[in-house]
Amino acid sequence: MSLLIRNGTVVNADRSFAADVYCEAGKIVAVEPGLSASQGMEIVDASGCLVLPGGIDPHTHMQLPFMGTVASEDFFSGTAAALAGGTTMIIDFVIPNPGERLLDAYHKWRAWAEKSCADYSFHVAITWWDESVYEDMGTLVRDWGVNSFKHFMAYKGAIMADDGVLTQSFPRALALGALPTVHAENGELVDYLQKLLLKKGIVGPEGHPQSRPPKVEGEAAQRVIQIAGILGVPIYLVHNSAIESVDAIARARRQGQRVFGECLTQHLLIDESVYYDKDWKRAAAHVMSPPFRPRPHQEALWEALSGGILQTTATDHCCFCGDQKAMGQENFARIPNGTAGVEDRMAVLWHHGVNMGRLTANDFVALTSSNAARIFNIYPRKGVIQADGDADIVVWDPQLRRTIAAETQHQQVDFNVFEGMEVSGGPVYTISQGEVVFAHGRLQVEPGMGRYVSRPAFAPFMRAQQQHNDRHPARVVNRGRPDH
Amino acid sequence: MSLLIRNGTVVNADRSFAADVYCEAGKIVAVEPGLSASQGMEIVDASGCLVLPGGIDPHTHMQLPFMGTVASEDFFSGTAAALAGGTTMIIDFVIPNPGERLLDAYHKWRAWAEKSCADYSFHVAITWWDESVYEDMGTLVRDWGVNSFKHFMAYKGAIMADDGVLTQSFPRALALGALPTVHAENGELVDYLQKLLLKKGIVGPEGHPQSRPPKVEGEAAQRVIQIAGILGVPIYLVHNSAIESVDAIARARRQGQRVFGECLTQHLLIDESVYYDKDWKRAAAHVMSPPFRPRPHQEALWEALSGGILQTTATDHCCFCGDQKAMGQENFARIPNGTAGVEDRMAVLWHHGVNMGRLTANDFVALTSSNAARIFNIYPRKGVIQADGDADIVVWDPQLRRTIAAETQHQQVDFNVFEGMEVSGGPVYTISQGEVVFAHGRLQVEPGMGRYVSRPAFAPFMRAQQQHNDRHPARVVNRGRPDH
Amino acid sequence: MSLLIRNGTVVNADRSFAADVYCEAGKIVAVEPGLSASQGMEIVDASGCLVLPGGIDPHTHMQLPFMGTVASEDFFSGTAAALAGGTTMIIDFVIPNPGERLLDAYHKWRAWAEKSCADYSFHVAITWWDESVYEDMGTLVRDWGVNSFKHFMAYKGAIMADDGVLTQSFPRALALGALPTVHAENGELVDYLQKLLLKKGIVGPEGHPQSRPPKVEGEAAQRVIQIAGILGVPIYLVHNSAIESVDAIARARRQGQRVFGECLTQHLLIDESVYYDKDWKRAAAHVMSPPFRPRPHQEALWEALSGGILQTTATDHCCFCGDQKAMGQENFARIPNGTAGVEDRMAVLWHHGVNMGRLTANDFVALTSSNAARIFNIYPRKGVIQADGDADIVVWDPQLRRTIAAETQHQQVDFNVFEGMEVSGGPVYTISQGEVVFAHGRLQVEPGMGRYVSRPAFAPFMRAQQQHNDRHPARVVNRGRPDH
Amino acid sequence: MSLLIRNGTVVNADRSFAADVYCEAGKIVAVEPGLSASQGMEIVDASGCLVLPGGIDPHTHMQLPFMGTVASEDFFSGTAAALAGGTTMIIDFVIPNPGERLLDAYHKWRAWAEKSCADYSFHVAITWWDESVYEDMGTLVRDWGVNSFKHFMAYKGAIMADDGVLTQSFPRALALGALPTVHAENGELVDYLQKLLLKKGIVGPEGHPQSRPPKVEGEAAQRVIQIAGILGVPIYLVHNSAIESVDAIARARRQGQRVFGECLTQHLLIDESVYYDKDWKRAAAHVMSPPFRPRPHQEALWEALSGGILQTTATDHCCFCGDQKAMGQENFARIPNGTAGVEDRMAVLWHHGVNMGRLTANDFVALTSSNAARIFNIYPRKGVIQADGDADIVVWDPQLRRTIAAETQHQQVDFNVFEGMEVSGGPVYTISQGEVVFAHGRLQVEPGMGRYVSRPAFAPFMRAQQQHNDRHPARVVNRGRPDH
Repeated sequence: MSLLIRNGTVVNADRSFAADVYCEAGKIVAVEPGLSASQGMEIVDASGCLVLPGGIDPHTHMQLPFMGTVASEDFFSGTAAALAGGTTMIIDFVIPNPGERLLDAYHKWRAWAEKSCADYSFHVAITWWDESVYEDMGTLVRDWGVNSFKHFMAYKGAIMADDGVLTQSFPRALALGALPTVHAENGELVDYLQKLLLKKGIVGPEGHPQSRPPKVEGEAAQRVIQIAGILGVPIYLVHNSAIESVDAIARARRQGQRVFGECLTQHLLIDESVYYDKDWKRAAAHVMSPPFRPRPHQEALWEALSGGILQTTATDHCCFCGDQKAMGQENFARIPNGTAGVEDRMAVLWHHGVNMGRLTANDFVALTSSNAARIFNIYPRKGVIQADGDADIVVWDPQLRRTIAAETQHQQVDFNVFEGMEVSGGPVYTISQGEVVFAHGRLQVEPGMGRYVSRPAFAPFMRAQQQHNDRHPARVVNRGRPDH
Repeated sequence: MSLLIRNGTVVNADRSFAADVYCEAGKIVAVEPGLSASQGMEIVDASGCLVLPGGIDPHTHMQLPFMGTVASEDFFSGTAAALAGGTTMIIDFVIPNPGERLLDAYHKWRAWAEKSCADYSFHVAITWWDESVYEDMGTLVRDWGVNSFKHFMAYKGAIMADDGVLTQSFPRALALGALPTVHAENGELVDYLQKLLLKKGIVGPEGHPQSRPPKVEGEAAQRVIQIAGILGVPIYLVHNSAIESVDAIARARRQGQRVFGECLTQHLLIDESVYYDKDWKRAAAHVMSPPFRPRPHQEALWEALSGGILQTTATDHCCFCGDQKAMGQENFARIPNGTAGVEDRMAVLWHHGVNMGRLTANDFVALTSSNAARIFNIYPRKGVIQADGDADIVVWDPQLRRTIAAETQHQQVDFNVFEGMEVSGGPVYTISQGEVVFAHGRLQVEPGMGRYVSRPAFAPFMRAQQQHNDRHPARVVNRGRPDH
Repeated sequence: MSLLIRNGTVVNADRSFAADVYCEAGKIVAVEPGLSASQGMEIVDASGCLVLPGGIDPHTHMQLPFMGTVASEDFFSGTAAALAGGTTMIIDFVIPNPGERLLDAYHKWRAWAEKSCADYSFHVAITWWDESVYEDMGTLVRDWGVNSFKHFMAYKGAIMADDGVLTQSFPRALALGALPTVHAENGELVDYLQKLLLKKGIVGPEGHPQSRPPKVEGEAAQRVIQIAGILGVPIYLVHNSAIESVDAIARARRQGQRVFGECLTQHLLIDESVYYDKDWKRAAAHVMSPPFRPRPHQEALWEALSGGILQTTATDHCCFCGDQKAMGQENFARIPNGTAGVEDRMAVLWHHGVNMGRLTANDFVALTSSNAARIFNIYPRKGVIQADGDADIVVWDPQLRRTIAAETQHQQVDFNVFEGMEVSGGPVYTISQGEVVFAHGRLQVEPGMGRYVSRPAFAPFMRAQQQHNDRHPARVVNRGRPDH
Repeated sequence: MSLLIRNGTVVNADRSFAADVYCEAGKIVAVEPGLSASQGMEIVDASGCLVLPGGIDPHTHMQLPFMGTVASEDFFSGTAAALAGGTTMIIDFVIPNPGERLLDAYHKWRAWAEKSCADYSFHVAITWWDESVYEDMGTLVRDWGVNSFKHFMAYKGAIMADDGVLTQSFPRALALGALPTVHAENGELVDYLQKLLLKKGIVGPEGHPQSRPPKVEGEAAQRVIQIAGILGVPIYLVHNSAIESVDAIARARRQGQRVFGECLTQHLLIDESVYYDKDWKRAAAHVMSPPFRPRPHQEALWEALSGGILQTTATDHCCFCGDQKAMGQENFARIPNGTAGVEDRMAVLWHHGVNMGRLTANDFVALTSSNAARIFNIYPRKGVIQADGDADIVVWDPQLRRTIAAETQHQQVDFNVFEGMEVSGGPVYTISQGEVVFAHGRLQVEPGMGRYVSRPAFAPFMRAQQQHNDRHPARVVNRGRPDH
């Protein structure tokens, strides 16, 4: 099938320009002004609209088994909601139980994800360590298109990777050309504070942020950056929510360290006060880790996006309905962690970012799509409107007004953290693999339409790092900045 | 005329890919693998080579009248040397005398530059202030393709712009959609320290760095960033050489301020010890402002390039021969300031940046070409290998070895600060406007081949800044980061 | 006359201990437990109380001629109010008009201050520069007991000292063993912003903070610290109110630079919202420079006091009554700048500092008395309870509760910025020169009881700095931290 | 016995003044000018000399069993060497083996220390955790005069305390009014790097610094500061040697956190190059942890001392002779860690600190004695020349010249890291408990002359911290600086 998008303004990370976009067989074939339609082509009129690379959400958890339940959003409904919001690809997570072979977990997740209706890929978590983990990392990279491994510094007693695991896993990943990613919270402190608070009788949702204060995140961020710096390994920090972690990233980048940072749309807009909502349900619905923060942190995240300190936006989309959240009614530490967002990420970021002058439209594309594609090495297949790329495209109307509401959302969960927010700007059409899958508010999707995306190892920055390590061997294990 | 570059790997800022490049009438027409040659085409074989966007040096001073003499490099010889090094465009400076109409100075420089053999453009300096300056800024932007204005915070009693001038000029530039650029050194302190040192009998070249210590630069950088921040104006700092100014830029970017930073290849490689050379001539040959710095500053500049704190590389190419430098034999403050570099910038940066693993090849392209093009709003006409762009292209052989030497250089000056440096990587062919102007070491240029490049106002980030100011009016004059 | 203070706990900056204090002829004679009373001694019972060195307020402006009027508080009423609050000495300011001989101004102020009922001394401002200023600085230090010179970086067109004046004055002060002090706000920016706001029709008190945002202070603080650092001169920054200036001081101290910082009690407790009070009078009553800041700045000041970044607390006590403030009814820039505080400084700092656990009682003494005495080189004559010191003592009841109110204050002004604040802790007795001058809320003072305090030059840190400069000559004019 | 020190200048942390000092029964009885001698008094003439509080070295390891051997310096020889250098008290460490009862270890060390000839006290290390440790901490504080507990973040598999132990121990210490102290190095990283280097065949002393780079220290410092900050516990970091840890302390103090920092004289003067000495013995003799650092770190330590970021100086005195060091001939990780310094600390700090103008004489006293006394709560018994204090006094001749040499030292070890250093300034007399124990180069000491010094809990800053935690309960577990 072929598709022609006409009369729009193409917006890529590097520039905007008037051009039509012609797609065939799931690929972009031509990006030029004045392309002529021919018979059989589907025509999409993008007059007055922008034509953007489809969004990539590099951090989701569809149908995740977690804290004694399973996320309500499955791979079909979740990718459908993504498409409805302009996001044409997700990168989800394979999370082996400690002791479980990585490959076994990987195949389990692959099976779950078959029903996806948008393209998807997987980070694989390193939740324990032995020789088999070492081996499976190699197999996953070489044979299964995995180029990133996730490490949780929190969740003590469950999936936490301590410094000993990190020092094993990071050099292994580097040697394979794969990027370590990290959830940075000090699990020991969280554990201590949870127990302390519960002992004091603080069992409600307000205990959640109190047990995970900003410094708990900042400490871990700073630590893992130092560890990666000493070992000479690039690193990617997921869902930075606190001034402290942003500052740690900024310091490292100032010193030339290859550190990437992600932030969640939710953390940009919502503050800590939600946990003090008198309606337990509403408060509990916001429980996720890291938690929402006092307001100055939001501003810092915006600044860091504008200033290039953070490179990607994501959602950590992980849905639990009210009855699931209720598992923690007597104990905040048992409230399943997670909030939804995959459907709203792009509109919310556009409205508060571009409309407010914090970001250019090009910045927006970089932050929602191109940068993730480059970091996770699927660029320019994804992340840019350009001949030969996948035809994952959003026709974006900057004037489209919408009020976000759980009632009208596609996300399979009974709550929306942005409830009532009015936003200007949103997708009129979403095109996946060259097909219109969302048009004027209506989804046209079926399970299984999405494909697994293999991600090759050795992104250019990984190779440069290896070369750097070879050229400065002493540097890797010996020196920080001042030591010349 | 038409030209086909075959068998190379195109390297843009965002990615590298195997493709041939076909040019016609000075423009790139196609970038695709397997283009077929036809009769009459000139064929360039890029086997084993990279095909890069031609370099842009955003900071040169050809035939500058300065300190009682005129730079030895004229617009023809200087642009020829640039082409020999892979740089296909320069942005030079119009520097009115205090009291001189901006437009008069502009036309004087335009006349001088007619003989250029590569494309060129002009920043215009604001060296004084009255109503005519305000008016001429408007005329220059609207009618003459100027989108950046330069401010010297040093050179007291000559071209220095004090805080009063800056606060007038910056908002004017913003309103016109033009970018203020700044030479940051505290002119009062330089003046005081020069007199102090001379009084103490320190008259030799070592007095030069002693009168312009890093803090003199850092203070001015920090100051002008604060001024721009308060006024809500993007800003570009030229030739950052000191840890202090890099730190000031990093802090501002962390706070989301639109601050761009440039560094010179010379500052990346050469340290302060040159001023203590016992051979007066050699020491004097290195006199430029800001001066070369103690070694930790070099490392900091590299880190800042890798980490995205600085966005462009330049040379401040400004040549004075030994007999001109001799004017300061009795007084370091009279040594004409300037060093050459336009010919060697790209090779030196490649060798010490890419070969050492500090930069990817894509970073290199961004830092030598694309970023300057985007900041000064001539992208994608310049700065990327892409259909419709100007056919300014370098065929780069990463294996090409060369020893830099004044004797063999094209630069019209009797000294080379990189003398004896061996570098791997350099241009085999330089193509300007679709013509091969440098091939295997030989220039094929004539005066006047270069064109004046008009630069439109209102780069996307300028528009975003204006929108931001409109949305946050109190912010502009009232608030820094912590004030929420 | 002789006086015995019994049964109290002496609190000095270094320790607390139970001791009686015996005073004779204005001096402390003995500090020991169990001193016996003899006939003729006045006995003060300090049971349950602390015995503190009298407060020193190093920043007041009594009966200052300013902005077309004269401060309502004169030297008698002002020092009386000070005594009522536990402050036994002030350091006020001689502020010559540009062109006025320093000595002339000094003697004018000395005459005004004759009626003081507490001890006093004078900083002398450098508001202009010529050979006579240079000479008079020497005379003031050698013959008149002045060891500190003030510089205003704000108030363009009036008393502002630009960078040229600073670079002349600082080395002169160093050579004399006197300390430069600085009001750090960028006067050019204030001027620009005032005009901009007025042009926009913002004429009310909210224009005051909008014309003097935190960065205007931070920029000047950073600048003057760099200038002092390059010149190798210790420096004291008055009334730091902003995160930005605190950060600048912290950075400098981290690098070993001798920089001292003061903050005002008012800035610790009051935030910017006061300028948006709908009652013009109330809003205008808070107009002072630097203005009150958004709340995070208050917390930063407290942190900086606790962490040793700031060393002194003061008030910038400068009173204008409602009818004087009314001069700026049509133009915020004409509202006379100043607020009162000399009477409340100690109680407010105790309550919010010591009672809240931010400061120890010893810290409190250091911050209200000892540090100022050491920095301005009148220690241990002032600033410590110790034999041979001046008998300036406060008997402090930590339980004394009071509600601050203009109606009940001794300060000669019709407003109190702390109106309604309840504080625990305050002076039961104030003793000046060995006499009880304030007891249980009642003043017993007469004009002229206070003495002028000569302050010798060459505090130990000044000598150390000179020695450092001698040992590291290149350092002074050449090097910042990284340049080893 | 009684002793009169005449004609000297007393130097305390707060001021210097001419006074005689009269001592009786081990105590200072009077500090006044013009005291008259009477019969039976021993007279010490301090003409031209300074009279300082005896030095306190808060970090020594006499006769430590470590790494398979025992430190060559025992408590007698070590305290004798201390006295010879002007240090009249040491605080050593009780280091229980994991599993060993704290009280058992404490009594073992007490027994070893009986032969000391100077006063001494003990920090007790927390090397493991169970209920008995919790209990013994209480017993030690209440009954045995211990008010500080040490935590090693390094030495994995031996005495390392991981984050789990820290989170248990810190709040326990706070509740007892005792101060946690920390050796900050990331033990996991050290372990990883040691193995990596050995595997690469790097077995010589250069492997030592390569396995413990600055960031390994900086990471741990930053981490433990965050942990303490979250838990609301004051903390003391021993032997800071790196810019990274100094910066972490500076940031914390800027935010008002109660963090104290120590540095070793050795780290101030010696750089990393010693490990590359071709003479294995010399290189190995410098092996200690943290290792010596590249030169910029030394300058940063000096800056931090001058700027008040670090409060104490110590030596980590821990002697191993050449034959002991030889245990690591095939493996740098087996070289017993430690260098000597207790004898030279004060002279080296005086020479390079006071003589160079970096410190005043008062700063010197604070950094060698008073601050340690205040932090470890034995002030004013120790740390000041004042009536009622212990008569631990040094008569210091600022002109005394000496060349440091192992051959002439009192330290019981065959090496001196300061070998050949010429210093001006040193003790003419050292007085301990009112007795002259060192005079003109000769020691007059006997085993057992020293006393165990009980240190009471609840220093003023500990009480203030508890009050702060009570007043800001949410703060302790919930908030960092920006969260107001």
